[in-house]
Amino acid sequence: MDVLVVLGSVNDADRGREAIDTLKGLGVDAEIVVASAHRSPERLRRIVETSDAKVFIAMAGMSAALPGAIAALTTRPVVGVPLSGKLDLDSILSVLQMPPGIPVAAVALDGAKNAALLAAEILALSDRKLRKALRTYREGLAERVARDSEKLGG
Amino acid sequence: MDVLVVLGSVNDADRGREAIDTLKGLGVDAEIVVASAHRSPERLRRIVETSDAKVFIAMAGMSAALPGAIAALTTRPVVGVPLSGKLDLDSILSVLQMPPGIPVAAVALDGAKNAALLAAEILALSDRKLRKALRTYREGLAERVARDSEKLGG
Amino acid sequence: MDVLVVLGSVNDADRGREAIDTLKGLGVDAEIVVASAHRSPERLRRIVETSDAKVFIAMAGMSAALPGAIAALTTRPVVGVPLSGKLDLDSILSVLQMPPGIPVAAVALDGAKNAALLAAEILALSDRKLRKALRTYREGLAERVARDSEKLGG
Amino acid sequence: MDVLVVLGSVNDADRGREAIDTLKGLGVDAEIVVASAHRSPERLRRIVETSDAKVFIAMAGMSAALPGAIAALTTRPVVGVPLSGKLDLDSILSVLQMPPGIPVAAVALDGAKNAALLAAEILALSDRKLRKALRTYREGLAERVARDSEKLGG
Amino acid sequence: MDVLVVLGSVNDADRGREAIDTLKGLGVDAEIVVASAHRSPERLRRIVETSDAKVFIAMAGMSAALPGAIAALTTRPVVGVPLSGKLDLDSILSVLQMPPGIPVAAVALDGAKNAALLAAEILALSDRKLRKALRTYREGLAERVARDSEKLGG
Amino acid sequence: MDVLVVLGSVNDADRGREAIDTLKGLGVDAEIVVASAHRSPERLRRIVETSDAKVFIAMAGMSAALPGAIAALTTRPVVGVPLSGKLDLDSILSVLQMPPGIPVAAVALDGAKNAALLAAEILALSDRKLRKALRTYREGLAERVARDSEKLGG
Amino acid sequence: MDVLVVLGSVNDADRGREAIDTLKGLGVDAEIVVASAHRSPERLRRIVETSDAKVFIAMAGMSAALPGAIAALTTRPVVGVPLSGKLDLDSILSVLQMPPGIPVAAVALDGAKNAALLAAEILALSDRKLRKALRTYREGLAERVARDSEKLGG
Amino acid sequence: MDVLVVLGSVNDADRGREAIDTLKGLGVDAEIVVASAHRSPERLRRIVETSDAKVFIAMAGMSAALPGAIAALTTRPVVGVPLSGKLDLDSILSVLQMPPGIPVAAVALDGAKNAALLAAEILALSDRKLRKALRTYREGLAERVARDSEKLGG
Repeated sequence: MDVLVVLGSVNDADRGREAIDTLKGLGVDAEIVVASAHRSPERLRRIVETSDAKVFIAMAGMSAALPGAIAALTTRPVVGVPLSGKLDLDSILSVLQMPPGIPVAAVALDGAKNAALLAAEILALSDRKLRKALRTYREGLAERVARDSEKLGG
Repeated sequence: MDVLVVLGSVNDADRGREAIDTLKGLGVDAEIVVASAHRSPERLRRIVETSDAKVFIAMAGMSAALPGAIAALTTRPVVGVPLSGKLDLDSILSVLQMPPGIPVAAVALDGAKNAALLAAEILALSDRKLRKALRTYREGLAERVARDSEKLGG
Repeated sequence: MDVLVVLGSVNDADRGREAIDTLKGLGVDAEIVVASAHRSPERLRRIVETSDAKVFIAMAGMSAALPGAIAALTTRPVVGVPLSGKLDLDSILSVLQMPPGIPVAAVALDGAKNAALLAAEILALSDRKLRKALRTYREGLAERVARDSEKLGG
Repeated sequence: MDVLVVLGSVNDADRGREAIDTLKGLGVDAEIVVASAHRSPERLRRIVETSDAKVFIAMAGMSAALPGAIAALTTRPVVGVPLSGKLDLDSILSVLQMPPGIPVAAVALDGAKNAALLAAEILALSDRKLRKALRTYREGLAERVARDSEKLGG
Repeated sequence: MDVLVVLGSVNDADRGREAIDTLKGLGVDAEIVVASAHRSPERLRRIVETSDAKVFIAMAGMSAALPGAIAALTTRPVVGVPLSGKLDLDSILSVLQMPPGIPVAAVALDGAKNAALLAAEILALSDRKLRKALRTYREGLAERVARDSEKLGG
Repeated sequence: MDVLVVLGSVNDADRGREAIDTLKGLGVDAEIVVASAHRSPERLRRIVETSDAKVFIAMAGMSAALPGAIAALTTRPVVGVPLSGKLDLDSILSVLQMPPGIPVAAVALDGAKNAALLAAEILALSDRKLRKALRTYREGLAERVARDSEKLGG
Repeated sequence: MDVLVVLGSVNDADRGREAIDTLKGLGVDAEIVVASAHRSPERLRRIVETSDAKVFIAMAGMSAALPGAIAALTTRPVVGVPLSGKLDLDSILSVLQMPPGIPVAAVALDGAKNAALLAAEILALSDRKLRKALRTYREGLAERVARDSEKLGG
Repeated sequence: MDVLVVLGSVNDADRGREAIDTLKGLGVDAEIVVASAHRSPERLRRIVETSDAKVFIAMAGMSAALPGAIAALTTRPVVGVPLSGKLDLDSILSVLQMPPGIPVAAVALDGAKNAALLAAEILALSDRKLRKALRTYREGLAERVARDSEKLGG
């Protein structure tokens, strides 16, 4: 498997599926699990240590320890997605402000799609077909901007 | 042992000693260790699982996962001290915003002394001598306020 | 009685009941009162000084002086719950940033459940049955994570 | 006496004297005391209940409960000065965000001078001489602006 | 007239009426006008300079210059009410952070009621009947807390 | 005259001179005055109404009402520079969050140089020589980036 | 053409039209296009380099690079409108905090109307008719304030 | 070349070298250039389009458009390092809050070392020797924690 998406709570399933769908749309093999750094630390450790994923995507809200807890258990790349809630800055800063030595690649608040694209960019370094899929995706974005502009009359 | 003070980094030794000194001044047995949730998760787990401490005090900065990581491993009370740095809100919110189910007792930014006093208040519920020491400490605070006021001429 | 839940306003009754329910679910004896630090300081003082509660849980919003006002009147542990409102940071910082000497154990914004669990952890230090109830509760959390993951197909 | 300046800590004596000096410069009778809402609640209550001050100025940092605690004990006007520290927003929001029913007149962070001027404006409503002193003070401010501009060549 | 309530925009009429109602309930004479510091500076100046109000209450949102603009034109007390909007911190800091020399008495976000009570406390210094009305109001607050508590069973 | 730089306080003279120097370096005619929206509203009104400046640059800190107060008095473009202080967000939001109808062109915190460049860009719309000076300035910026990179060995 | 309104996304079309409508109401010639700094950088460059607009208005949310990206490509004035979203401070600070050398004229969050008025003020420096239209607009604002006040009975 | 470190300004050279040193210590080939998204957009485009780097690390402060500007020009992974300044939140949110479609991997404020480690983790997916170097680095971190603890006597 290429990417393992880890959710801190089943309540975030929609965000998880957004990442999975983006990955599958690019032809990337991905799976999803729920594992909390706080409520199931043993389970999280077992999953990370036994997974053959090349890249992890971790999503969590509040004191979002999940991406950092995975990063502490592996030297494979970990993409962290802070999820919105009552405060937003709590998950953003918990995911972003990792101490020196243990990196997490943070994306925007609720940025499930960009987490998937970042994981794909990482995998594409050794996958020519995926590189091509990413370029096609980008061209599609630019084309849609032009079409949107035309509709507005601009 | 009554209280184990866990530091996320040896750079925070002064804050750790402030807690230890406050505890010893009240007659509470306490020890100090360094164990990082991110750089040494195995060591942290071993320490928490083998410690006979009744209360943990955990101090960390940035994405301060340490108090929550300890709380995930035990049902004994964990007091969390967010440490100041470039942002302050990162450690405050990481320590405070624990998800439902895994509580941490957060104190003020750099609040090592209050962490110690809180641990002592908890232990004092079953220790009459410590209750008396805490009351004496409080009376001392109030007396100092009165003396300070006199010096100001108020 | 073991725990007294003090609300700054009757508008927060739902949060108060969430704490009471969590405590009763663990077999902890608890009661609830309304007493404002600002609108009824005399009543608050009388309640704190005559209560035989071992632990106080205080919930308030805005300039949330209630937990600190209780802490100023007792050396028993006080758990403070900042309640959400128009700003959120007002109640969070008012509860958290207690001056040295008078500790409050702050939990997350609207963290009534964790306040109850923290109070239970404190009481469990001298109550073997409660310790067991807390461990069972924790195991239940971990099991639910695993079940949630299965439902997601992960 | 007209104005009582209450400091939460003797460490804030300089700010207190700044208020006293501004008041005395306007011919207003003022005194200063130290009394903490958290460390000496009894002393604070006694001071407020026995004082014949017409206006209170209260200065405090962190979880700055002092102005609100005084306001809870009197219906005389209370001016609150949030003092700067590690966070600033803690004292600002604690002083400002009083619940409906118990007003505090908040001034800027470390705004001791404006607290004094506000107290003087309040007293001047029934003191013609003080009204004149305040107008003279204002004219002085405007004149200094003009002189400053000339020095700059503008 | 005793109090003039100045609104920065007619959109804030409800907040203005809340202040007026509170003042009238205490027997204080009050009127309301709309005058913007930014859209009608001339009108604002004329109103402030010709008004015989003893105290001004000014309410505004966003870059809430209104309270400060009034304070710049008079040495009578000005109470400033920051109004909520997309950001909240903009109006709070604009009202609160007045430069030394020109005080504004800030109350909480949307704190129309406390603005009215503060104005009443100021006027009560030379109005025995109003002092009595304020004390009765306060006793009512405390009694309601007790009744609320009883309803909750506490 | 082309540009009038208005300082809220003589303490900000260095920032004012930075704008003047940038403008003079581009051949733009500029002058500097001190005039406070809060301490000298009359003086400010007289200056704005009698000035023949095409563009105003206004610099102020704290509750930075100055740019908006000028904008309220003229329909000529006003560039606002929020100045740093104890909070920073106070001046930023006071300058930026102008209500609909009265625009201010805000630049970065302490952004005196960009205020001058923006004023020059505005004037350059009807001044071919100034347009050329601005383009030369820009090319200089780009060249310095390249030189800086070479020095680093990149 | 006088003003080109550039939207970072077609989702912001309503804000774009608000600017266009304000400009057309003042008799200013304006057009609207969609061009993203991130999704269509080539398109954006081509548009800026071939446009004969005198002033650009750029609107974007999140990491709102659009105004700065336009400013990097031209020395004509660029007005930046930060758009609201989950955080607000992200777009505000991205638009406002431009580095020295490359100015953007920032207006309030969602301040499309003020962006249009600012652009008009800039163009009015060499357009007497537009100056008159702006003054009439301003007088209309002041008159509406007076009418609003009358309706309130003030 | 494996990694290209792009600095927005030569003033950030120390942070750039910290990344280079970390990369070289792990045996990763890396170079450094200065190229500003705002002051030299053409140069930036040329560098990104002609570079054979597998991963980009971009460091910038204030409205930190650099990482996003690079990401807009390539589908190779871009690591963004927000640099501290007067506000900090400006660079953090500018780097983090990228719109859907164009990902940037954000690390902590001034997190040059973690940016390097993250780039190394990405490259290590197809480089067994680098994987080993990263694991050795991690073990070194954990060992140092243990040694630090011993020195403290814990």
